[in-house]
Amino acid sequence: MQSLVYRFSKELTDGRGDMKDVLGGKGAGLAEMCRIGVPVPPGFTITTAGYRNYIQAGNQVEEELRSQVNQALKWLQTYLSKDFGGVGSPLLLSVRSGAPVSMPGMMDTILNLGLNSDTVKALADVSDNPRFAYDSYRRFIQMYSQVVLGVDHDEFERLLEETRDAESAKIDAEISAAGLIDLVERYKDVVLEHTGLPFPEDPAEQLWGSIESVFRSWENPRAKFYRKINHIPGETGTAVSVQSMVFGNSGNDSGTGVCFSRNPSDGSPGLYGEYLVNAQGEDVVAGIRTPHEIRGEDAQAMQQVMPEPYKQLVKTVEILESHFRDMQDIEFTVEHGTLYLLQTRTGKRTSHASLRIAVDLCDEGLIDSNEVVRRVDPNSLSQLLASEFDYEAKKRVLEDGALLARGLNAGPGAATGMIALSAERAVEWCDQGHAVILVREETSPEDIAGMHSSAGILTQRGGMTSHAAVVARGMGKPCIVGCSEIIVDLKSRTLRFNETVLREGDAISIDGSTGEVIRGMISTQPSSLVRGLVEGDADKGSLTSYFNRLMAWANQVRKLGVRANADTPEDAQLARALGAEGIGLCRTEHMFFGDHRIFWVRRMILASNPSERREALGHLLPFQTDDFYELLVAMDGLPVTIRLLDPPLHEFLPGTDELISGLAREMNCDEEGIRRRVVELHESNPMLGHRGCRLGISHPEIYQMQVRAVVEAMKRARAEGVDAKPEIMVPLIGTKKELEIVSQSVAAIIADGGFEIPVGTMIETPRAALTAASVAESADFFSFGTNDLTQCCLGLSRDDSGSFLPLYIEMGIYARDPFKTIDVEGVGQLLKLAAQAGKDTKPDLKIGVCGEHGGDPLSIMFIATTAVDYVSCSPYRVPVARLATAQAAITSEA
Amino acid sequence: MQSLVYRFSKELTDGRGDMKDVLGGKGAGLAEMCRIGVPVPPGFTITTAGYRNYIQAGNQVEEELRSQVNQALKWLQTYLSKDFGGVGSPLLLSVRSGAPVSMPGMMDTILNLGLNSDTVKALADVSDNPRFAYDSYRRFIQMYSQVVLGVDHDEFERLLEETRDAESAKIDAEISAAGLIDLVERYKDVVLEHTGLPFPEDPAEQLWGSIESVFRSWENPRAKFYRKINHIPGETGTAVSVQSMVFGNSGNDSGTGVCFSRNPSDGSPGLYGEYLVNAQGEDVVAGIRTPHEIRGEDAQAMQQVMPEPYKQLVKTVEILESHFRDMQDIEFTVEHGTLYLLQTRTGKRTSHASLRIAVDLCDEGLIDSNEVVRRVDPNSLSQLLASEFDYEAKKRVLEDGALLARGLNAGPGAATGMIALSAERAVEWCDQGHAVILVREETSPEDIAGMHSSAGILTQRGGMTSHAAVVARGMGKPCIVGCSEIIVDLKSRTLRFNETVLREGDAISIDGSTGEVIRGMISTQPSSLVRGLVEGDADKGSLTSYFNRLMAWANQVRKLGVRANADTPEDAQLARALGAEGIGLCRTEHMFFGDHRIFWVRRMILASNPSERREALGHLLPFQTDDFYELLVAMDGLPVTIRLLDPPLHEFLPGTDELISGLAREMNCDEEGIRRRVVELHESNPMLGHRGCRLGISHPEIYQMQVRAVVEAMKRARAEGVDAKPEIMVPLIGTKKELEIVSQSVAAIIADGGFEIPVGTMIETPRAALTAASVAESADFFSFGTNDLTQCCLGLSRDDSGSFLPLYIEMGIYARDPFKTIDVEGVGQLLKLAAQAGKDTKPDLKIGVCGEHGGDPLSIMFIATTAVDYVSCSPYRVPVARLATAQAAITSEA
Repeated sequence: MQSLVYRFSKELTDGRGDMKDVLGGKGAGLAEMCRIGVPVPPGFTITTAGYRNYIQAGNQVEEELRSQVNQALKWLQTYLSKDFGGVGSPLLLSVRSGAPVSMPGMMDTILNLGLNSDTVKALADVSDNPRFAYDSYRRFIQMYSQVVLGVDHDEFERLLEETRDAESAKIDAEISAAGLIDLVERYKDVVLEHTGLPFPEDPAEQLWGSIESVFRSWENPRAKFYRKINHIPGETGTAVSVQSMVFGNSGNDSGTGVCFSRNPSDGSPGLYGEYLVNAQGEDVVAGIRTPHEIRGEDAQAMQQVMPEPYKQLVKTVEILESHFRDMQDIEFTVEHGTLYLLQTRTGKRTSHASLRIAVDLCDEGLIDSNEVVRRVDPNSLSQLLASEFDYEAKKRVLEDGALLARGLNAGPGAATGMIALSAERAVEWCDQGHAVILVREETSPEDIAGMHSSAGILTQRGGMTSHAAVVARGMGKPCIVGCSEIIVDLKSRTLRFNETVLREGDAISIDGSTGEVIRGMISTQPSSLVRGLVEGDADKGSLTSYFNRLMAWANQVRKLGVRANADTPEDAQLARALGAEGIGLCRTEHMFFGDHRIFWVRRMILASNPSERREALGHLLPFQTDDFYELLVAMDGLPVTIRLLDPPLHEFLPGTDELISGLAREMNCDEEGIRRRVVELHESNPMLGHRGCRLGISHPEIYQMQVRAVVEAMKRARAEGVDAKPEIMVPLIGTKKELEIVSQSVAAIIADGGFEIPVGTMIETPRAALTAASVAESADFFSFGTNDLTQCCLGLSRDDSGSFLPLYIEMGIYARDPFKTIDVEGVGQLLKLAAQAGKDTKPDLKIGVCGEHGGDPLSIMFIATTAVDYVSCSPYRVPVARLATAQAAITSEA
Repeated sequence: MQSLVYRFSKELTDGRGDMKDVLGGKGAGLAEMCRIGVPVPPGFTITTAGYRNYIQAGNQVEEELRSQVNQALKWLQTYLSKDFGGVGSPLLLSVRSGAPVSMPGMMDTILNLGLNSDTVKALADVSDNPRFAYDSYRRFIQMYSQVVLGVDHDEFERLLEETRDAESAKIDAEISAAGLIDLVERYKDVVLEHTGLPFPEDPAEQLWGSIESVFRSWENPRAKFYRKINHIPGETGTAVSVQSMVFGNSGNDSGTGVCFSRNPSDGSPGLYGEYLVNAQGEDVVAGIRTPHEIRGEDAQAMQQVMPEPYKQLVKTVEILESHFRDMQDIEFTVEHGTLYLLQTRTGKRTSHASLRIAVDLCDEGLIDSNEVVRRVDPNSLSQLLASEFDYEAKKRVLEDGALLARGLNAGPGAATGMIALSAERAVEWCDQGHAVILVREETSPEDIAGMHSSAGILTQRGGMTSHAAVVARGMGKPCIVGCSEIIVDLKSRTLRFNETVLREGDAISIDGSTGEVIRGMISTQPSSLVRGLVEGDADKGSLTSYFNRLMAWANQVRKLGVRANADTPEDAQLARALGAEGIGLCRTEHMFFGDHRIFWVRRMILASNPSERREALGHLLPFQTDDFYELLVAMDGLPVTIRLLDPPLHEFLPGTDELISGLAREMNCDEEGIRRRVVELHESNPMLGHRGCRLGISHPEIYQMQVRAVVEAMKRARAEGVDAKPEIMVPLIGTKKELEIVSQSVAAIIADGGFEIPVGTMIETPRAALTAASVAESADFFSFGTNDLTQCCLGLSRDDSGSFLPLYIEMGIYARDPFKTIDVEGVGQLLKLAAQAGKDTKPDLKIGVCGEHGGDPLSIMFIATTAVDYVSCSPYRVPVARLATAQAAITSEA
């Protein structure tokens, strides 16, 4: 017969810490603590198999489960020499849920079980503390009635308040024993009135009621929702731990507390937590009494008040840390001066603490450097790199009700400034020295300058990989997208949030790490890590030094290279400071939007004949040359992959009548002509339209100008001794022939320069991927544009997916947002096949991934299993990618 | 040494008819005629290897080639007992190009070569006909000077005209010998003046000049262009045939003619052609003298004038037909009563003739039924099915300058009617009994009713597979798209063609077979074949009977099934008459646009809550039920695949402010609300947006209504004894899960009906294709939507490709329009893999192709090599597909 119940105690423990699937996290933790000699009140755990047994029987306790629980209960009574429901030395129990994956606070817990009219008296006698006994009893009735019997919490709270008032007690602990005895009776009346039955006196009934209630709580809406948002499967079910009670509320030599083995905020060593004298666990959490520190010189600190239990605690925590090799989050109780641990688990921590603790544990010899690399969540590094709100200041304004809305936290960090509803306005105010938040329905390449000038970006529409999100992350700007509660009204130049209307120029703050949009200004501070890295801070113990040690270890193991997507010298320098080994994607179109350039770009588009077009391009040439030159200098010695013009031409023309009129005046040309060209260039599906190499083939002079600029820039840089390494990348090919045509069309220009410049291609249409073996014959390198590849492969427009993709993810059609994490089954299949086909054709073909996925740790985990050589991502994601590539290497070796 | 020269004569022939690659079409034909005993003037052919030899030597004649030609020339002189350049019996030659693939008129020909000041006299003596000799000489000088020496044609024509005028001759044949002798001298002066050198006297120089000139003409712009548009490779080069001259201009017992062995227009038996007495070949073509019929009672007919040569001709043609087993197009010359054939080739013919000739040849025992199937071009059937302009009437108006513009011939057939610039207007005027041509910038599903009401459709934008083109072909309506010369001005309700402005209501005619847009009305006639098929005409000898015999043979061999894409009972009936074995695609959205429906569709879209939406759907249910019922009845016993709603909802809402206002009044609701919804539903790339099953998953009640309608319709039909076989098809899935969710959401409704209804899926995203093995687990059938699959795979929007796809095809990036003929390398790869994966998972999985490619013969040729079971296409393409599938089967067996 399968064992459905596992016992744990100092002398006899059936389970182990690695049996989370069977015993739940809590049960496994209790078992492991017992095995390593940590003092734990003994008990037993009903396994998740027991849960499934119960569910399969149609929510019925079957004989086998009942019998195994009863046997374990008998063993526990014998072990403790206590009697469940007996009046000599009454055994009281706690019943707690415990799922294989931690779901803190999501399910039910019942304490002090086993008390009834008889045992409460016995407890009063044994403890010589009637107040404690009846306090425990009233807590039990309240908890049990609420959780198991479904009686409303408020009823009990009202009676408790009446009692407090009657006794003029300020806090519950001041209520007299008599008051509590009376309260218990009134509690029982409430139960009878609400359920039609007296509160159960039979401890066995209490126990089974509690166990079943915990079982059922697995499917409560709160728990289901938590599982959904955390991608936790629902089939496993929960384990139930039944544990003998120890009482922190049994007098002033007793108490209870929670603590971390290290500071969870900054990772510094030493116990960090709070405790209360003469209290049960819930009191610490409930916040009715103010708990005191555990460690320290404060007279109220546990270290001072209970020096002996404190020493036990320190010793126990040492055992736990060296056993679990990680910072622990523990719950303990002191009963008459003896320490008991009720729970231990790996402690949640900030990104900062996570980094420091892992490195410190390595220095302490508990883990090796690979384990440090493995432990730090790559995504947490983004937080360390983002600027932050002053915590207290933000808390204050939120308490004042300044929260306006929530959107998708697309770019981490904090920003505060004046609302600007257009890119032009953002630039104007920024030039005047104001901090600006650009707020748009959605952004387009036309807004680039405005985004550059803004401290943060907020959009009404779009998802995590919308234009705004991608560009903002690239710039390292805080960004919130898809904030559907706001309505941008350009006519009245206002912003509506439900009832609230803000005007352009009003102050607003956005927290891109949380998605909160907040009214008014909040002070911010730049990330200390970024400052440290840029300034080369090497102070031992500084965050920067911890970060550098982590990255050095990561570099030792990783196999994938990491480049950055960067379009400006500033971005390139930042990326280099953050460890980029080259530029994997320079989007040349971003350079077209600058001052003095967009005019000639538009002239080029509006040209009525090739010679006019060539003239306009001639004006653009020196700008592009300068742009490339500066990039090449910034990346001296490292490769710089320059993607030729990609977006459709209409993106460079104004969209509204007003802007068209303005342009006509500026260009001194026919308004109607511009309008006609705008209409002519309009496309039903621009994503699949006349862009990328299609533009380069129909208008060869554009790419020729760009390649000439690369050649000129390279010449200039080399002449100055800079080791310039440009690479030319052709976007959106579907056939080998397109690559060949573009290559041939620029071959003479490259040859003129006298240097060899590799010419490669994006692989971003399924057709290019499917024919990669042949494309590789004409390519010096591949770079997968996984954004477009995802759009084409899934037939899914990134910009339009907002109306159904969230539902799709909720329903499990896609496990994750395929624009954030690569869709392994579909897009991944194409990528893997194409990369291999490319290498088969040409073993020295260099292969990169330059889509958004290049900076996503989960995607990197997959990319590492392919023939890809490097990933490329926005500068602020470079450290994330460096760490993730290292983790992927470690995983693949394991 | 490789043989670079092949001789041909009655007694000795080196080559054969199947050596077109070596000898060119003309050389191979001459060789074959000699081998089968047809009288041909002897000569020799320089092979294509000889051409390549010349090119590789840098456009130089190398020794080997020169020596082989000289040897052959020696042989020819001996054989004919004539002397090249001699004055006894002078040998004259023709030099003609001949490529492996026929390129009529694209390259150069030189006749009468070998004449000079001496030989011309000899010819005059030998023939006793100085007029003939000098006429031949002046023709030679003119032709050689123009072709080899590059002297302008006009100079000679001017001198010829002067001579005619001087002698008051009406035609060249009336010029006297003396006049010609004088003309020859003046021609020579022209040559000297233009080239600085005298006209070559040396026959060898003449010969090599001509041969090299023919070689070079392979690369002339005209020939290159012809090869490009006809997909003929350029590497092979041309062969050159050097043949002894016979002279049709050597007297009244001589003549020359061209004829077909059967009537190329309707295929009826008997010689069909024209001849001229005392003339050389060019005179027949030049149209200066009016040629006479070959066969017939007319006194001028060859049959009457030259009865003996005529009999020789009849006999020779019989030999040729039974040898080549096809209708021949021949050139012949009669010299002093003796017939010589100069050329034979398979004759071009109309679709009608093609069908009849093939069937007749089978009846005559020359070919078998498979060969009949193989011979008829499937595309030619479309022409037989399309309605036609009265030929004379059209010719008349074109001569009057009524041609307005040309567009893409998207839907064959002729239509004439009043210009309607909106669908509403088209419906209105049609209801009043007028014939209407709907003219739009481009069409959208909103225009369906208007398209139905129109005799033809003309659009300014879009390609061969734009909405207008696809729908029009589906309806069998004449259609011209992408007619960029027109400008639709909805404000003034006019249509501009360059200078011409037509008003709405003006008469216009469109020839969808040629792409011509013509001003005014032209009378049209429906295709006799369609009438015959619908009315069941079985008269022996009628086009219908020929068609039916062809189709019966096709049915015997074909393996792929053929279904039709049809949305209405009328279409279904037509498709059935044309041989469809079921409906492979019923687009249910087309049903949403009918009267009384669109109102409720819009109500459904504008519903502010689920109950309003359900109410609107409730109103649509009976309509859909009726629609499906009628379809099922029309297709009694055959499967009907019903695709659930596919397009995005915004396609059902009005686009302009005016229409929105109208709708608001009609719906009695808030205009602003509609506008907001329109904006809300707007998408950047609707093709990749919220459509297909995405809509069915986010709004399950829509698909549930549609499936309920299918079930109700099936019940009703079955109750009446109709063998209704509906199949439900889910569009645009990317994952197995989407199919499962939709299937589950309608499972209870299907179960309610009590019948089994297969539920399958479109495979139209690359991801669905890539994961087909898993999708098949949940599908009863697959149907490849190759339009969308092409768009996604190539990253190419059909509607937007007009601005660069023509260039792409011209540059050879895609060999053909990938929306017309499947891109085998990319899209085909996906289709083939996915079909096989589907069958591997589920061997009885039914697999179809329902995109436009299902009706394209070249695509069908590919599809037949995959695991696909059937194709589905628009009704008028069904015969095309039936024939093409049969051809594919024969090819695969060969």
